[in-house]
Amino acid sequence: MSSSTARPVCILGLGLIGGSLLRRLADDGHRAYGYNRSTTTVTEATAAGYDATGDLSAVLARAADEDAIVVLATPVPALAAMVAAVAEHAPSCLLTDVVSVKTEVAAVVAAGHPGARYVGGHPMAGTAHSGWAATHSDLFVGAMWMVSTPDDVDPTDWRAVAELAHRAGAVVVPAADDAHDRAVAAISHNPHLTAAVTAAVGAGESGLALRLAAGSFRDGTRVAGTAPELQRAMLEGNAMALLNTLNETIDRLVAARDQLRDHGSVEVLVADGHRARRRYEEVAAAQVPITEVTIGADGWAAELRRQAHLGRIWLPVDGN
Amino acid sequence: MSSSTARPVCILGLGLIGGSLLRRLADDGHRAYGYNRSTTTVTEATAAGYDATGDLSAVLARAADEDAIVVLATPVPALAAMVAAVAEHAPSCLLTDVVSVKTEVAAVVAAGHPGARYVGGHPMAGTAHSGWAATHSDLFVGAMWMVSTPDDVDPTDWRAVAELAHRAGAVVVPAADDAHDRAVAAISHNPHLTAAVTAAVGAGESGLALRLAAGSFRDGTRVAGTAPELQRAMLEGNAMALLNTLNETIDRLVAARDQLRDHGSVEVLVADGHRARRRYEEVAAAQVPITEVTIGADGWAAELRRQAHLGRIWLPVDGN
Repeated sequence: MSSSTARPVCILGLGLIGGSLLRRLADDGHRAYGYNRSTTTVTEATAAGYDATGDLSAVLARAADEDAIVVLATPVPALAAMVAAVAEHAPSCLLTDVVSVKTEVAAVVAAGHPGARYVGGHPMAGTAHSGWAATHSDLFVGAMWMVSTPDDVDPTDWRAVAELAHRAGAVVVPAADDAHDRAVAAISHNPHLTAAVTAAVGAGESGLALRLAAGSFRDGTRVAGTAPELQRAMLEGNAMALLNTLNETIDRLVAARDQLRDHGSVEVLVADGHRARRRYEEVAAAQVPITEVTIGADGWAAELRRQAHLGRIWLPVDGN
Repeated sequence: MSSSTARPVCILGLGLIGGSLLRRLADDGHRAYGYNRSTTTVTEATAAGYDATGDLSAVLARAADEDAIVVLATPVPALAAMVAAVAEHAPSCLLTDVVSVKTEVAAVVAAGHPGARYVGGHPMAGTAHSGWAATHSDLFVGAMWMVSTPDDVDPTDWRAVAELAHRAGAVVVPAADDAHDRAVAAISHNPHLTAAVTAAVGAGESGLALRLAAGSFRDGTRVAGTAPELQRAMLEGNAMALLNTLNETIDRLVAARDQLRDHGSVEVLVADGHRARRRYEEVAAAQVPITEVTIGADGWAAELRRQAHLGRIWLPVDGN
């Protein structure tokens, strides 16, 4: 596809995710521009050669004029104000987002801009560092990028958002919002809690323990170093799904504790964990594409979701 | 120090740890040789230019003749047989080990060779891959190497073992056996269980979840990929200490679950984990040496242990 003729992209929020998306699209010669509330960020982005502004109404008026895709890329607490501005200044633009919890964002959009052409999205890309200073154009290369795929989504809009993710270098994974939120509770939010408890228990023993800490502790606690307010916003926004995975975590650890106490064995948990890690490595190593689905054909969204549940990815192939 | 004139080292077991130690010492021009039960390993080590044999009595007779330091480097189940052979063929040699749980190894040595000149040791180096094929001479560079430091340890023998660890490229951390075992339960064995439960819960959700898994899952579950039998031998050999850290892990997760369920918040666990991770990073970044202890002076062992509990390391300085 020719980038220069594709629809422009207007990104609201130039932190790690939004800023990296702006870099990637602009570096590839695509028309892309962004808004950020902070003058410092706007100055930094502009100095780096990117098209950025602190004027929200103006950037949205431009987006409306150019029929741009508008990308919500602020933290959750700022979303409602962004959505209200979109509803006022660029109501007919295709709207997507790059924010973690999909049912939560969909609810904010539905409340503030009921008639929005909204297709949610979520790139699974790093959050340990934040802000414009942490942005880079390769952030999404090879990353999984969930695209909301409800039954009533417009096929043309869906494809535009999926192609945006693909253009960013990411791999498109179609999913329903609630299935996505359960999945990220299991493989992202719950791991933040287990990393936190691993760190707290390890550091509680003594300076000797932290002195002896090696790879298992370093890797197992890495995400506990993420800014607490970022972790809390992400995890607490997905409280219901996280409660389920946390309860399962506790149940499995209690069973392991009982087996260790009564039989001196950790066989079950170690075997389950090993099997699960091997399955993860298999899935990570193989990117099987979704096949035989024509976007817009009868039942296409349900079929995309079904195949994605098998671990497959969507590729923009001619004729899809 | 001149390596060529230092005491030779005889290593029993040429897996990841023992084999890497043999490589390191021999590559540095030090006299070092090893034994392994497996003909394949002996052939591989010999073909790579190292001095290795499958004849246990002969290698120990040579060690006795040359007053070598004998290093136990087999898995725990094979230790008793090794110790019996040392008692028979090289009873007066200085004996050390590189096996995980120190109270367990000390008990095996005390049972099979009551008069042994034994000073235990434990390098905190990787176990995810195993066998001679995984060995490399830099395995211990910068790694922490615990050296058993009970009150009644012989100062000359202690220094010889500490200097061996230092020659391997490691950083010496003096500790009592039971304190070491509690510490590794907290920062190594418990992280294996939290990695296992993180993997099992994540993989239990769906293929979609594993498809979306990114850095937090990859790093947080890495050690769950270690061979289950290696994990079980290590963890179950430290069952008492592990039971304590596992109970604390469960207690903290239950408290977090209650806070999440009743108040929609994960504040306490996320804050505790973040603080603990920061402390770990501070300890990892700063290697403060133990000061003003003369090895062999009155109360030297207790003072080494006291300072190591503050997170300090031992450096072989002239006059120590």
